[in-house]
Amino acid sequence: MTNTLILLRHGQSEWNQKNLFTGWVDVRLTELGRGEAARAGELLADAGLLPDVLYTSVLSRAIQTANLALDTADRLWIPVRRSWRLNERHYGALQGLDKAETLQQYGEEQFMEWRRSFDTPPPALEDSSEWSQSRDPRYAGIDGEPPRTECLKDVIERLVPYWEGEILPDLTSGKTVLITAHGNSLRALVKHLDGISDADIAGLNIPTGMPLVYEIDDRGVPAGPGRYLDPEAAAAGAAAVAAQGAQGAQG
Amino acid sequence: MTNTLILLRHGQSEWNQKNLFTGWVDVRLTELGRGEAARAGELLADAGLLPDVLYTSVLSRAIQTANLALDTADRLWIPVRRSWRLNERHYGALQGLDKAETLQQYGEEQFMEWRRSFDTPPPALEDSSEWSQSRDPRYAGIDGEPPRTECLKDVIERLVPYWEGEILPDLTSGKTVLITAHGNSLRALVKHLDGISDADIAGLNIPTGMPLVYEIDDRGVPAGPGRYLDPEAAAAGAAAVAAQGAQGAQG
Repeated sequence: MTNTLILLRHGQSEWNQKNLFTGWVDVRLTELGRGEAARAGELLADAGLLPDVLYTSVLSRAIQTANLALDTADRLWIPVRRSWRLNERHYGALQGLDKAETLQQYGEEQFMEWRRSFDTPPPALEDSSEWSQSRDPRYAGIDGEPPRTECLKDVIERLVPYWEGEILPDLTSGKTVLITAHGNSLRALVKHLDGISDADIAGLNIPTGMPLVYEIDDRGVPAGPGRYLDPEAAAAGAAAVAAQGAQGAQG
Repeated sequence: MTNTLILLRHGQSEWNQKNLFTGWVDVRLTELGRGEAARAGELLADAGLLPDVLYTSVLSRAIQTANLALDTADRLWIPVRRSWRLNERHYGALQGLDKAETLQQYGEEQFMEWRRSFDTPPPALEDSSEWSQSRDPRYAGIDGEPPRTECLKDVIERLVPYWEGEILPDLTSGKTVLITAHGNSLRALVKHLDGISDADIAGLNIPTGMPLVYEIDDRGVPAGPGRYLDPEAAAAGAAAVAAQGAQGAQG
């Protein structure tokens, strides 16, 4: 007996388009991103994959993506649970910076370490920054304080307990679960599900707006790797993310 | 110590526009209705009334209204709870019928009894009707079966326990609560809050897309009647609903 898990990275955001490091800054979808989200809902409906429950981050671009996809799939009415634990990686002091300028200023080695190092976070963001979340009311309920920077390892450490404690019990009770989240929080989850090594995860790219489907058994083990509902479009999307590596498109 | 409750009737729906009895049929907002919803979010933000939690029915027009209003008010991230107990009144065999044709066919006395009688429901809707909800998966979790018709008294009987058991505890814990729902489910709640008699409730009309704000004390008692954030527009909207009486615009 397996249960269906659907992962969906949000569509293009305003800061994806402007090529800025985003992290926890709460930007909205572009018109292109809204179209990607609606298309994802069509793919779900066409495949007969109808979510019974939605999990989202607390960032607007993931919530907008879910709302648009579920509207198209005629599943607006399902229960919703949100958690900061599904948020994008906090990009520290890089939040709000232009990616091309950052590459220019710091050089490729430093730039790629910030983007792809598994366990070295960028410098912490000052609370006084206009891009800080230290006074954002949505994080008032966090046990402790919101992070000021994160590496992928930090994301895994805050995400996996939520996966195991909240999402997996819903899934193994027989529900089809949709998670709408972000490039790096979904990379963290896929790394956990697929058992990808700390070294190999740097090469994994997740395209925007493409439903990625897993069958998960009652112990939380996937029957195999995830499959994209539209494999050709997903491969093209992932290649585009990889090709934009120097521009830092992922996250 | 009082707590803030905000009631919001969904914006214009496709079947409001077509003048059809809607009830539990799951139609979407029109462009006008989407604009009303976004405007409601602006009114909330301008008044500094920022919801901490959202309650909606399981009907798409109320959910779309909430999503658009919260997007405009920059509160997409708040927790959401949905219940069929906030649904519009089930209109029985009238669901899907043209209001003007129904008035023509049955005469004004019968027509007004169906629309405004406190305790006489319209004839039940057959399960075989294309407008029946008897096989709708969103009602699979109802204890018993979804209704086949309802009068306002029935709506009060299914709504007040949810108000007292779920919404009021959130409110009295200090949260600002937003409820997005429907003409008749909000009439039922306002009747309960304001202590309106069974006879007088027939004269109460709630306009679409206008936030109606109550201050509620810790025992669940309102400090006074609800106030609309935009009283002039609300009065005009309520008058329009009342004037459309013969067309049955409410519900």
